[in-house]
Order: sequence, then C-alpha cells, then structure tokens
Amino acid sequence: MSSVESLNEDQSQSLSDMMTSLGKAARAAMPALANAGTEVKNQALLEMAKAIRAQSKEILTANAQDVAKAKANNISSAFLDRLILDEARVESMAAGIEAIAALPDPVGDVMDNWDRPNGLKMSRVRVPLGVIGIIYESRPNVTADAGALCLKAGNAVILRGGSESFESSRAILTCLKTGLAAAGLPDTAIQSIPTTDRAAVGILLQDMPEYVDVIIPRGGKSLVDRVQKEARVPVLAHLEGLCHTYIDRDAEIGMAKSIAVNAKMRRTGICGATETLLIDKSIAGSHLPEIVDALADRGCEIRGDAESRAIDSRIKQATEDDWHTEYLDSIVSVKTVDGINGAIDHIAKYGSHHTDSIVTDNSETAEKFLSQVDSAIVMHNTSTQFADGGEFGMGAEIGISTGRLHSPGPVGAEQLTTFKYVVRGSGQVRP
Amino acid sequence: MSSVESLNEDQSQSLSDMMTSLGKAARAAMPALANAGTEVKNQALLEMAKAIRAQSKEILTANAQDVAKAKANNISSAFLDRLILDEARVESMAAGIEAIAALPDPVGDVMDNWDRPNGLKMSRVRVPLGVIGIIYESRPNVTADAGALCLKAGNAVILRGGSESFESSRAILTCLKTGLAAAGLPDTAIQSIPTTDRAAVGILLQDMPEYVDVIIPRGGKSLVDRVQKEARVPVLAHLEGLCHTYIDRDAEIGMAKSIAVNAKMRRTGICGATETLLIDKSIAGSHLPEIVDALADRGCEIRGDAESRAIDSRIKQATEDDWHTEYLDSIVSVKTVDGINGAIDHIAKYGSHHTDSIVTDNSETAEKFLSQVDSAIVMHNTSTQFADGGEFGMGAEIGISTGRLHSPGPVGAEQLTTFKYVVRGSGQVRP
Repeated sequence: MSSVESLNEDQSQSLSDMMTSLGKAARAAMPALANAGTEVKNQALLEMAKAIRAQSKEILTANAQDVAKAKANNISSAFLDRLILDEARVESMAAGIEAIAALPDPVGDVMDNWDRPNGLKMSRVRVPLGVIGIIYESRPNVTADAGALCLKAGNAVILRGGSESFESSRAILTCLKTGLAAAGLPDTAIQSIPTTDRAAVGILLQDMPEYVDVIIPRGGKSLVDRVQKEARVPVLAHLEGLCHTYIDRDAEIGMAKSIAVNAKMRRTGICGATETLLIDKSIAGSHLPEIVDALADRGCEIRGDAESRAIDSRIKQATEDDWHTEYLDSIVSVKTVDGINGAIDHIAKYGSHHTDSIVTDNSETAEKFLSQVDSAIVMHNTSTQFADGGEFGMGAEIGISTGRLHSPGPVGAEQLTTFKYVVRGSGQVRP
Repeated sequence: MSSVESLNEDQSQSLSDMMTSLGKAARAAMPALANAGTEVKNQALLEMAKAIRAQSKEILTANAQDVAKAKANNISSAFLDRLILDEARVESMAAGIEAIAALPDPVGDVMDNWDRPNGLKMSRVRVPLGVIGIIYESRPNVTADAGALCLKAGNAVILRGGSESFESSRAILTCLKTGLAAAGLPDTAIQSIPTTDRAAVGILLQDMPEYVDVIIPRGGKSLVDRVQKEARVPVLAHLEGLCHTYIDRDAEIGMAKSIAVNAKMRRTGICGATETLLIDKSIAGSHLPEIVDALADRGCEIRGDAESRAIDSRIKQATEDDWHTEYLDSIVSVKTVDGINGAIDHIAKYGSHHTDSIVTDNSETAEKFLSQVDSAIVMHNTSTQFADGGEFGMGAEIGISTGRLHSPGPVGAEQLTTFKYVVRGSGQVRP
C-alpha cells in the first residue's frame, strides 16, 4: 500500500514534513549522543527515573484515559493487562531505568586489538548504531525501557507505540525528556511520533532511509510482517517465538517432565514459551503419559498427532495449523518424531529461528541438535523460558531478534551498537 | 520500477519461476554447507583452483567472446581492463582461491563463553549467514573470489555479475561447481543467475525474502543506490569510498606529503583512495605548495577552494560537485578548513562512511578525529589506501561495507557469518 493512501494531498504533505523533521532532529542529535560520556548518559537515566516517580500521578491519569477509551472499544483482557498501569508498575518502570543506568556502557569498548607487521596498530571499537526506529504494541512500559536502552547505547530513537497507549506514552516521554534536559543532552535524543495516524509508520519505514539506520519492530506477527515487507531500511526483526522442546530417547523422564512443564507453563505469554513438544517415537509410550499428567494438572490443553493420541486419549487432535501456531496460552501441541533427525526436520519446517531445546543424556545427540538446529538460541537440558536477556546476564533487552544479520538473540544495550576500525600509524604508506 | 515491466506475462512468469527455483535450491543446500567440515570445504576450494588452472583455455575463450562484444559496444578502457583476462589473471584467480582455503574457518568458532549463577553454560558460536545474493560489475575474477569466500563461510550464494562478463563468469562457475562436486558438496552451493535480463535482479531484490538472507551489492553508486532502494531483504551496502585525508596544523610536513601522495596516487581506482585533501587553514600557506608539488609531479590534477587557490595558482577552481565526487582517477580536491572541527564537519557533510585519515603529531587532536568521524575505518598518520581486508590481516574480502548494521568495514569470510547462542544445562528450569 502507498504509505499515504488514506490522506489527501495537504495532509500527507504535512505528515511527511513532520516525519522528516523528526528524522532530521534525530540525526542532528547523533554526535552529541555518540560523544556523551558514560556519566552524562547515566545521569540522564537516573533523572528520568526520578521524573517518572515524581510524575507518577500524571502518568496514571494519562493511562486512565487510554484505558477508558480501550474499554469502550471492547479490547481483550490480555490486551488490557499490557496497557494498564498502577503505582507498582510505574515504580517498576523507574527501577528498570535505574537498572539500565547500572549496566556497563558498551560505547567505546575495544572489542579487538592487533598489530600488523608494518607497525600499524589496529583496533575495533564499539560505537552507537545511530538513529533507531522502534515500533511496538500498546505497552506503555516499553516507551521507558526502549528509550532508556537506546540512550545507554548512545543512539537517537524515534518511538512509535500502539495507538491505544498514546496518552500514557506521551506522559512517560515527558519524563524521559526531563532526564535528557537535566543532563544537558538534546531532548531530540528520544522522540515519539506525535500522531496515531498509521500512515506515519509507512513514512518511517519507506521514506526516511536518510535519517533512520535501523527499524526494530516489536510485537505480533502481523506487525513484524508489515515492517519486513515495507521497510526500505534495515530491520532487526523480532518475530514470534515458535519454540520447541524435544524429548529424546535418552532423556531422563524426571528432567523431561520438569523442563516440559516449565517451558510451556511458567509463563505462557512470553516469546520464549515452548509451543510444541516433540517426543521421540521410541519413548513416547513410556514418557508421554507422565508429561501429559503434569501438563494437564496445571490446566494445559494438549493437542497432538495420531501417534500421541493413540498413547494418551486426553490429547486432542492437532491440525497442520497447530504446528504453525504460537499459542501464547495454556495450550501445547505434541508431535511424535523419528528421533533426533525427525526433531531437526520438524523445527526446520515450522520453527521461527527463536529458541529450541533438547532434553537428552546423550551428549552426541545433544551436540547434533545444538549444531544443526538453525535458531538464535539452542539449548540442552534446560527450559526455553530462559530465552531472555536478563537470564543471559545481559541486563534489559528490547526483545529477541530472530533475524540472521547483525545480532540474533536478545537485543540489549550492547546489541544496539555497531563498531568502527581504528588504525593508528606512524607515517606508514602502502607499498 | 516494477521488476518485470519490460516482459510480457509468460516471460515474467518463467523468469520468476526460474529465480524461485534458484532460491529454493540455495536454501536446500544450507544444512549441508553449515555442517560441512573445514576439510571438506577446503578440499572443494583446492579442487576449484585446480579446475580453473585446467580449464584456463576455456575461460580465456569465453572471455574473448565477452571482450569482442564489449569492444563492439565501445566500452571505456577502464571497463575493458576490469573485464579482460589473460593467463596471469587466471592463475591469480586460482591462487586467490587457494589463499582462501588457507584462511581459518570462521564457522564453529566460539566467540564468547560464560557461566550463569544457576549453572547454565552459555556460549556464542559463529554460524553461516545462510543464503547470500551478490550483485557485481563485469569483473570475472569476482565470480571466483565471491563464490570461494561464501563457501569458506558455509554460505550458499546466488551470483549476478555484470552482463558484459556473462560468458567468462559462466566458464568460471563451471570450475567452481567442479570443485564442489569433487568434495561431495551440493553444486547448488554456488549458483549464478543464468540470464542477463535485468528484471531478474528486481526479482532477487524484491520477491525472494523467503530464500535470500542478505544482498551484497558491489560496484558503482548507481547499482548500490538501486539495490538499497528496491531490496526487501537486508543489504550489506558497499557504497563508494569518498575518503578524506586531513592535514592538521600539528602535522609534520614530510609525513603529510608522503601520506597525501600515497593516499591519492598509489592506485587511483580503488575505493580506499583519498578523493579530498582537507588542510588546516593555519598551515595551508606553509604546507600546501610542497604537497601540490609532489602531487603535480605525479600527474595529479588538483581542484581547490578559493583559499587554496590563493596560496597556489596551479590549483584549479573546485565546484560544490567536487566535494561529492569519487574521482577514482588522478584528480584530487583540496579544501582549507578551520582546524579539526572544520575537518570533522566537512567529512560529516560529504563523506561516505568509508575511510578517513588525519595526519597530526598532536595525540589529543588525533583522538578527537578518531572518535568523532563517523566512518567504518578511521586512521591516524597513515594512508587511506590501507583500507583493505588483506592489509587488515583478514585475508580476501568481498569489499568494504559502509552500512552501520552487522559489519562495517572489510567483509571477509568472518564477516559473512553470524552467530547463535548455545545454552547447556543440567535440568535447570526458570523459577
């Protein structure tokens, strides 16, 4: 679709001008951000947290407006749960920003150092990515997290949250800008698109390669699909997490059960939750009923193939769609497979390159799985729910990238940087 | 433009089917390539070199056809020089592939290793990028280099060379496939688009995100611009090299002269050649004439701003266009600037984020330049002509990436990989 099809000429021109001015301002903020020292950035972050606490009432009032409007539009309870703020959630946003301040600053980090025979001293040094566009769902806390993480890595950011959280995000953005100002940083370091017009997203994706270095879409499959299809700038895609746990013939039953239950049921709404259990045909008869017991006890619906249903009648019939579905709910699909090769083939066909785990006591089988499964995160004898920047020791994250380029897996402050080569000589010329 | 505008419906359908089958075959080759050991890949490379030597006559015959056609079309001598092969050049292609075989295999390299407090053992391991599309000019040797480098990094590649080198590339591709077959690797690991129809490039850029992970455009500005504008898959852009050498007020005159001459004149046709000399106003009077002497002695035309022309009348008038121009020829533009800040501002405005160098004995000024100039490669007291994978110690390269994402700077075998996280547990579940 044309990015401006729903607008008349004047409107589209003014929208386009507005977006260009956001882009120019972000680009102009880059040098100040790239050269801001760690202390200045951290001061800004701490002042942001302070402002969020101080303006908690204003944020909650704005959020109440969003919530009232959303309720009038009959949104789902899961959607409402992500949208709604209370004092505890506001405090947790502020604490989250303080945690980002406490992280190491990736910018300026010397990644490599080597000397050449001609005496040239080479190094590779981390620098900010530049200007980042982040498009996300109606979750006001992402405004705070994403803005703070981008600043930590020295980037300028243009945020575009879901339209249902417009007022909440605006109130939070005010606090972020208070922090920037207190540290003497340009307040255009963190900007938000000041309209809910969807055509603005089209302009961001297609018409601003001069001003935007990378787009990060965060959210459901349809959003990410749209961004990947329309974007004319590089995309760090955060696709769905269609994660698998494979129970191998050499799995210890107790471990298999506890990992399967945790991977599926600990929290069903996160992208690292397992959606499909694969089980080696040769041990399905002995292992599956115990696993089904444990899942059913916790209220999980189980949908399986004919072989698994023949073993346990509590399993409902799965359709082809089930293997493609990220439930994000208390539902799991179960497929019997022909050993490790069957598991690898199933994941290659249906997986989303996010996170997949094998349970086995056979280290050879485990290594085969780890090397041949083509996902950002591959695991052995542990739960896919560990697919999380915090659990990896990386601190806060924007999400889990499922793209191949740049940085698959959790995207934290370090992954929001790139590098440059620095070459120091003493007059060398090339022969 | 629509990728198929010049074709009728049947033709465009068959072209599209052909491209899809290339894409599917490349995707299908991925697991075999990702899991091929170093020895198998090196065996294939050595067999490729052997086949190129053995079929030298066939390659030269094919090249003669290309050259005859190109001459009939009145191509430039620079173009002809890149297109034409002789025995020495064929031997150098074979030797180049052997050098790639001798490089370390990046795949499987453990980049990081760390343990979590819960006992999870984390690592980050290099894996191939996947399927790469490379679009390049009419230089037959690139077919050999690019095919071999992609294989070394475990990638499948779809090549598209300039149409004027069609027959030469086809003959070289035959040798590459001989090598793949000898090592038992799928011959679809290296494919070439078997038509000179430009619409095929449009399909590669726009219609194949399912099969192609990244596009690398190599060549002139108009090609790279087209690719960046049209591509629906990530692009590792190899933009022009509008490189600067800045002579600071604290530069030693002898070093400044030798670096300026080498940076411009050693080879004028490479992307790391300096195109603009920036000189600190405060020392232009004392330093510029000597530098102009040295450049003019070597046949270099010099175009400058009014201030530089007032100092040295041999300098011709530069226009605004000159600051934007990658001459790739014995021409240099000279601009007097207001110290380090003036140099940084000029490079920010006109540079192409490729390679820029400062000549100064003042380490504080040097560090400011190195940190504030936003290019893939920044240098101090050395020649921009060192911007080359081989000179960096990385071995062969596809080119110098000027994009921010993934891997700015020289793109060799290691930069043609990505990574995955491997998590090894002993039954851990997430609390």
